[in-house]
Amino acid sequence: MQQPIQAAIFGLGITGSKTAAFLLDRGIRIVAAVNATNFLGQDVGIALGRSPIGVVVTSDAEAALSQTRPDIAIVATQNGIEEILPIVKRCLEHGADVITIAGDAYFPSIDSHQAAVQELHALALARGKTILGTGVQDVFWDNLPVLLSGAAQTITGIHGSTCALADEYGDWVLKALQIGASPAAVAKSALHPFSSALIGPLHNIARQLGLSVTDIHQTVEPVVARQDFEPVLAGRTIHAGQVVGLNAITRLITTQGVTLSAGFISKLREVGDSDFVEWRIEGTPNLHVRVEDRHDIDTTSATVVNRIADVIQAPPGFLTVSDLAPSRFSPHTSAITENRT
Amino acid sequence: MQQPIQAAIFGLGITGSKTAAFLLDRGIRIVAAVNATNFLGQDVGIALGRSPIGVVVTSDAEAALSQTRPDIAIVATQNGIEEILPIVKRCLEHGADVITIAGDAYFPSIDSHQAAVQELHALALARGKTILGTGVQDVFWDNLPVLLSGAAQTITGIHGSTCALADEYGDWVLKALQIGASPAAVAKSALHPFSSALIGPLHNIARQLGLSVTDIHQTVEPVVARQDFEPVLAGRTIHAGQVVGLNAITRLITTQGVTLSAGFISKLREVGDSDFVEWRIEGTPNLHVRVEDRHDIDTTSATVVNRIADVIQAPPGFLTVSDLAPSRFSPHTSAITENRT
Repeated sequence: MQQPIQAAIFGLGITGSKTAAFLLDRGIRIVAAVNATNFLGQDVGIALGRSPIGVVVTSDAEAALSQTRPDIAIVATQNGIEEILPIVKRCLEHGADVITIAGDAYFPSIDSHQAAVQELHALALARGKTILGTGVQDVFWDNLPVLLSGAAQTITGIHGSTCALADEYGDWVLKALQIGASPAAVAKSALHPFSSALIGPLHNIARQLGLSVTDIHQTVEPVVARQDFEPVLAGRTIHAGQVVGLNAITRLITTQGVTLSAGFISKLREVGDSDFVEWRIEGTPNLHVRVEDRHDIDTTSATVVNRIADVIQAPPGFLTVSDLAPSRFSPHTSAITENRT
Repeated sequence: MQQPIQAAIFGLGITGSKTAAFLLDRGIRIVAAVNATNFLGQDVGIALGRSPIGVVVTSDAEAALSQTRPDIAIVATQNGIEEILPIVKRCLEHGADVITIAGDAYFPSIDSHQAAVQELHALALARGKTILGTGVQDVFWDNLPVLLSGAAQTITGIHGSTCALADEYGDWVLKALQIGASPAAVAKSALHPFSSALIGPLHNIARQLGLSVTDIHQTVEPVVARQDFEPVLAGRTIHAGQVVGLNAITRLITTQGVTLSAGFISKLREVGDSDFVEWRIEGTPNLHVRVEDRHDIDTTSATVVNRIADVIQAPPGFLTVSDLAPSRFSPHTSAITENRT
């Protein structure tokens, strides 16, 4: 018998809140909402600027999970695996599959969090549950170039570029991006706030194409202003030729001679800019695909919702998106047929 | 034990020849090459402008198949299912899986060739073999919008546009395209040489998203010259505002309220033109993806080669690409492990 999917949401920040709203719009029942500070004691619907749904935001994850036993938990709290580990464990122990937008969970086997990953993987297997990291990467940074590769006869390189406009990110990012500096002053080893964002997707591409990664190189290059302009936030004029952002380039070398690279551009918005993503396949033939506006918050939240059915049906373990078929719009995600455990 | 894949190629026209060359470059052994007229008695390698490979082009399909028993047959002879039916039957009877670039085989269940399709499907099931239609549609007209949909929360429409530059197609196409006519003279029911090309892909998209098609509308619209120019072939000046090609628009209505449409633009090349494909998803959020140059011959041939492993492993029957995972570059297609029958 079909039953409505019951979901718990952990974290009601920008993306968590959007995801919660999308869950409701799809007819997925939010049975628990856990947040550290904001909205505590408020009805989730009210917190989302909507009608009340009869579920109150709490900081008590244990009580929320044990009282509601959701089918799926959406973890949108933090970016690191150690940080999300206690919540994910608790969700698995209470019988929920887990989808997280934590960046470090996107391709967990290549980051430095091995012990935490193995602990979560073992627990997921023991409980027969699935953990998946997903987000904007899933379609745009990973499955898009893999799909394009299906039209290629030979490949010597797959090269991506993705741009995040930093105007709304706040002061710490603007400082890290060395806004207004001279390009010559930017070290190739400069700290880029999102330097690791594309490592997981590139590894996923390698895995999906059967390529063996032998080496990883990372450099940072300045992005310079095309003309004088006054950024929305920075409060002063940036002159043409001055640093307006940084491009963190990750390059994977493989034994098959295929180079995989991607640049994560993070910059202030100039005229004509968008948060685009594009991929070039170097080979026979050369191919190029571009998405002009990624709409990160919307597409990450929608991807999470579209992945729910996949994750509920997936084999247990700490998976990556390359263990699943590519995501697609699944309008009928609101009900599941499998028996609840 | 791994054995090299053995392939037969039927049809050594432009795409068939390119596919044959790609097969050899991947280490796939061509054991038979069948063509109606050209290259008869020539070594296949010579016919491709390469070194001889010890296989002679023949017009005798029966002898070629019975003597070589290939694992896979590539059928690149004609576009209609009735036309390819005798060859496909023969291939199945001799134990070969079949990949064809015949346009009508791309989504066979919705065209008018039901009897032929059912005959082939039944034979494929009886022989435990697979038939698949593929080509440039697979990645660009079908899986690309489906992949993009995975980042959408709601969808009200999926709208594509694909452009084929007609300069090299010859007189019959130029005449059909009403080159030089006044736009007002083009009837909405005008004959477009490729008016049916996108029906299959649109149906495949509907199928992959679980949408039920209730109605199909087709119209033709003139494409007008942006400025005066002299086409490479036509031998006379086309003036700004005159017809420079036609856009055949196919629109599928679904019970879910999602409209699927795609325009097949076939036109003479003006400055800045390419054989692009683009898709827009209307929904939350709006999304747009564009591939600037499709390189039809190369990408169709590469897609065929990349699909070989899928088809050898697929369940028997007359399949469509929506029965398979999306295509991807598969560099190790040259060998199979399954036992030959």
